[in-house]
Amino acid sequence: MSTTRQIENDFFKSALAKGATVSSVPLILEWIKSKSSAMKTRIEPIPLERMRSWRFDEASGDIVHESGRFFSIEGIRVETDWGLVSRWEQPIINQPEIGYLGIIAKKIDGILHFLMQAKIEPGNINRVQLAPTIQATKSNCTRVHQGKVPLFLEYFNGERPVTIRVNQLQSEQGARFLRKRNCNMIVEVPEKEPLPVPDDFIWATLGQLKELIRHDNVVNMDTRTVLSGIPFGSYVGHAGESGPAAEHAGDHDRHFLRSLLDPENHLHDLDRIISWITGLKMRYHLRVTRLPLREIKGWEYNGGSIRHQDGKYFSVIGVDVEIGNREVQQWTQPMIQPMQEGIMAFIVKPIGGVYHFLVQAKLEAGNFDVLELAPTVQCLTGNYRTGKNEYAVPFIDAVLGAKKERIGYSALQSEEGGRFYQEQNRNMIIEAEPGFPIAVPDNYCWMTLNQLSTFIKFNNYLNIAARSLIAAVSF
Amino acid sequence: MSTTRQIENDFFKSALAKGATVSSVPLILEWIKSKSSAMKTRIEPIPLERMRSWRFDEASGDIVHESGRFFSIEGIRVETDWGLVSRWEQPIINQPEIGYLGIIAKKIDGILHFLMQAKIEPGNINRVQLAPTIQATKSNCTRVHQGKVPLFLEYFNGERPVTIRVNQLQSEQGARFLRKRNCNMIVEVPEKEPLPVPDDFIWATLGQLKELIRHDNVVNMDTRTVLSGIPFGSYVGHAGESGPAAEHAGDHDRHFLRSLLDPENHLHDLDRIISWITGLKMRYHLRVTRLPLREIKGWEYNGGSIRHQDGKYFSVIGVDVEIGNREVQQWTQPMIQPMQEGIMAFIVKPIGGVYHFLVQAKLEAGNFDVLELAPTVQCLTGNYRTGKNEYAVPFIDAVLGAKKERIGYSALQSEEGGRFYQEQNRNMIIEAEPGFPIAVPDNYCWMTLNQLSTFIKFNNYLNIAARSLIAAVSF
Repeated sequence: MSTTRQIENDFFKSALAKGATVSSVPLILEWIKSKSSAMKTRIEPIPLERMRSWRFDEASGDIVHESGRFFSIEGIRVETDWGLVSRWEQPIINQPEIGYLGIIAKKIDGILHFLMQAKIEPGNINRVQLAPTIQATKSNCTRVHQGKVPLFLEYFNGERPVTIRVNQLQSEQGARFLRKRNCNMIVEVPEKEPLPVPDDFIWATLGQLKELIRHDNVVNMDTRTVLSGIPFGSYVGHAGESGPAAEHAGDHDRHFLRSLLDPENHLHDLDRIISWITGLKMRYHLRVTRLPLREIKGWEYNGGSIRHQDGKYFSVIGVDVEIGNREVQQWTQPMIQPMQEGIMAFIVKPIGGVYHFLVQAKLEAGNFDVLELAPTVQCLTGNYRTGKNEYAVPFIDAVLGAKKERIGYSALQSEEGGRFYQEQNRNMIIEAEPGFPIAVPDNYCWMTLNQLSTFIKFNNYLNIAARSLIAAVSF
Repeated sequence: MSTTRQIENDFFKSALAKGATVSSVPLILEWIKSKSSAMKTRIEPIPLERMRSWRFDEASGDIVHESGRFFSIEGIRVETDWGLVSRWEQPIINQPEIGYLGIIAKKIDGILHFLMQAKIEPGNINRVQLAPTIQATKSNCTRVHQGKVPLFLEYFNGERPVTIRVNQLQSEQGARFLRKRNCNMIVEVPEKEPLPVPDDFIWATLGQLKELIRHDNVVNMDTRTVLSGIPFGSYVGHAGESGPAAEHAGDHDRHFLRSLLDPENHLHDLDRIISWITGLKMRYHLRVTRLPLREIKGWEYNGGSIRHQDGKYFSVIGVDVEIGNREVQQWTQPMIQPMQEGIMAFIVKPIGGVYHFLVQAKLEAGNFDVLELAPTVQCLTGNYRTGKNEYAVPFIDAVLGAKKERIGYSALQSEEGGRFYQEQNRNMIIEAEPGFPIAVPDNYCWMTLNQLSTFIKFNNYLNIAARSLIAAVSF
């Protein structure tokens, strides 16, 4: 009755297709570059009070749009017994509306291709990055509001018949967004159905996209989170040493392949991992209280932006944006500007012949359910550089001091360019030195890719940093 | 590396052990009856204002304990586009502290037995019901508060070495509790470890417990929810027609066995079901706002209790409790009294040779994440009797009009007796007539037991009514 196997094989085949199909990786890189240089942009920071259509709410000091739509910047107080800081206050983005991140997939010459968009966002490094076919809000999709309808909307709102391949609710950055989630979708249109490709769109295989993720700031965060949710299934007895998959894969990659496809061999079974998560959710509490933005302690409005008093974490700034060629769009908006470059890294290690990822259970203020599964090291705030005890980061030395041959993946990746101003974080996958201990602290746990892929399916288990890294794993 | 198979076989073996082991089903029933008649109790409804240690908060009218502990009765306003009523107000129980529901398991003569407690609760029908080894709050377990420590606490708080078999966060009644969750645990102690069994405790196999659930109001709700989370695993190619499991099972039960153990055959695969849930979570919104209890519309304080103006749904009453033999405990507390008996029923149907359960995605006000998976029919409020259009209940006729030979399970089961006053609901599993359509409305979906068991593992997918029914499935 089920056709799971077929679907998963299609994704799998596409992941192995790295060479030239409709296009090729060098051509796609060229194409993005040409899109970027053809685009006229002027994006400059301005004092918050000079924004048009945005204002400080009189009662609270929150930054709100005059229409009451889009998003707002509000304040929260966080109280928790997790970590070394038990109480703090901070600005946070409140965007109640769920976003749709959707990619159209279609077989071309028998191989699934994904329709990617060259998209410019005001916060982007490199200006143009590869985005999903559509990035829209719920009200865009249901046409509640008048206004320009996004291209290809009809493939995602039920108007055109498609096969839904992926449809998951996934979290955004818990340190920056209050309980925000997006709907991550991949829909497949029939091979025979003509699908005209507009100027700013291009077909790519999954293998090509994974190659492109190895480049700095080419594939945007929205694409990476959608790709991380692709199910490859489990192939008992098929994975690993032989078969067509293994033939295509290098030595490193073959390890990942087995870790992805083998549901049987792992250090801890799924029930034990769920028990570990339950124990931590029971042990720690997270209490988040809304505060008027103007009342939060430790932050000051200074020189047109809201900054932490020690210059740490991030600032809330205004930007003035002018984008376009023939049609020029102009607007202003608040954005989050990070104070340093962060790092997110998985340490991996073969255990019993299968690659395991060292996963951290991490509490973040905006989390939907207290804790999410995060990379081994995740510091978005650059605190790891200070070396102060308050922010001692476990395993940071193993990441920063990794020998070159142990670095399986390292690239700078942007956060979502619609909210974050030129924020890039170092993404890394590091193979642990042979002596690296299997015993780890309480809030860490070794898992295979197969297990991580299972958790991704269910809401709010893997955080966006972990998903961004998993999207980069190629085989 | 993993010993999942072994663990699951232990549970499985215990589920097949229905005959006399340490005890037997008739003996356990006798024992409960004797416990019940030996217990002196006086439990009577009193006007809310005559409760001791509880008071109406001056500002809000909320019902609170003078210590600020335990729970409170507050008001909420619910706004949603799900169902036919788009806005209502109601009282709700707010109990921020997570409860522990824990059962000790131990092999006796090679078969896992569960240590059950004969427990009296003020709301219980039959006075004494079979409860988990321990029902405690987080502060009991961490000994934050002084006071009597629950028996066997040391097996659940890490003081004694045990093997954790089940440890899941599970939701309570979403129509009555505000986002309340309990930690459901099963811990195993080594076969050789002596474990003295106090007077009010008894060992039972899983098979015996499932037999006992077929009796009215014998196994309490806390036990049923813990048992529903037991993992039996998947046995590709093993399930169904032959093998030791099938030998022990009747014709009906063998179908359930295959539905439980076969991960390969189903109408919709897991990714498709998740996509269906995601779609519904995106489509519907749920907005819950706290209100002072005295301000909620449609409810009135009348004759010592808080009642709906039409006498519907439930009332908030006070009870005066006196329980005990040698040591007599006396207290008063608010409770929820239902206005009618409700019904919760799964319709099942063999599809492609495998039993499928017709699952409803149901929005309830107190849900943690908008929707949870519920039985085909779930009306706790007796509205199905009125036949009014406002509360038209899909599939109610197929349940109420089921022929006797199609009723696989039917028993009256109590809600949690610590909060709900003599609330019992008819629990049923009905085999659909052969012509019952496979096509179902948008918010219904056919799933196998194997799929339901997978969803149970992850937080907040199956609601407590669905779990109560799944605990009753025997094989």
